[in-house]
Amino acid sequence: MIRESWSKSQKKHARELFDLALEREYKALIEEINLVKVESRDEVWELRERLNQKAKEMDRKYDYRYSQLIFVFAQLLREGYLTEDELSVLGEEKLDDIKKWGGINE
Amino acid sequence: MIRESWSKSQKKHARELFDLALEREYKALIEEINLVKVESRDEVWELRERLNQKAKEMDRKYDYRYSQLIFVFAQLLREGYLTEDELSVLGEEKLDDIKKWGGINE
Repeated sequence: MIRESWSKSQKKHARELFDLALEREYKALIEEINLVKVESRDEVWELRERLNQKAKEMDRKYDYRYSQLIFVFAQLLREGYLTEDELSVLGEEKLDDIKKWGGINE
Repeated sequence: MIRESWSKSQKKHARELFDLALEREYKALIEEINLVKVESRDEVWELRERLNQKAKEMDRKYDYRYSQLIFVFAQLLREGYLTEDELSVLGEEKLDDIKKWGGINE
């Protein structure tokens, strides 16, 4: 059972964490693109496919609705865009929910 | 009035010219992509948009049906992927048709 209420302070932290993860994911994507050296026709369309798939994935993932945030943070924790330490500013209850949904149990 | 009949020799030359233009367009595209240095979020999605638009454009342009070839070559001549000199192997009649449809009249 996910607790959907977020205090004013939790909302502020949540927004910062959300933006931080987005910033990191873009940074990694930009580095990846700049490392690509296209050498064939197939590689042109592979790059196109990669960008289309990434756009779809990020659009789906970065859903800033309070009803969705626990799942969003769980995914970002799993993927390494946020750490447990960083998420701990949201308080113990939220962190527990995030870890439960992220499949990380102590 | 476009003459749609193509002799065996014209077909052979047409195929070579078609492939040559395609090769050149890919070469230019690959060079363009490898020169791109993405620096912002917007530029990530601009690159994606550029590749999607280019895929659509090339898919539409490279139409190897004998009923379409004059128009295809006219566009390739206009865009500089083939020269008038190269297209002259197709014979005077075809070249006239291509130039007429490419908007190049002497």
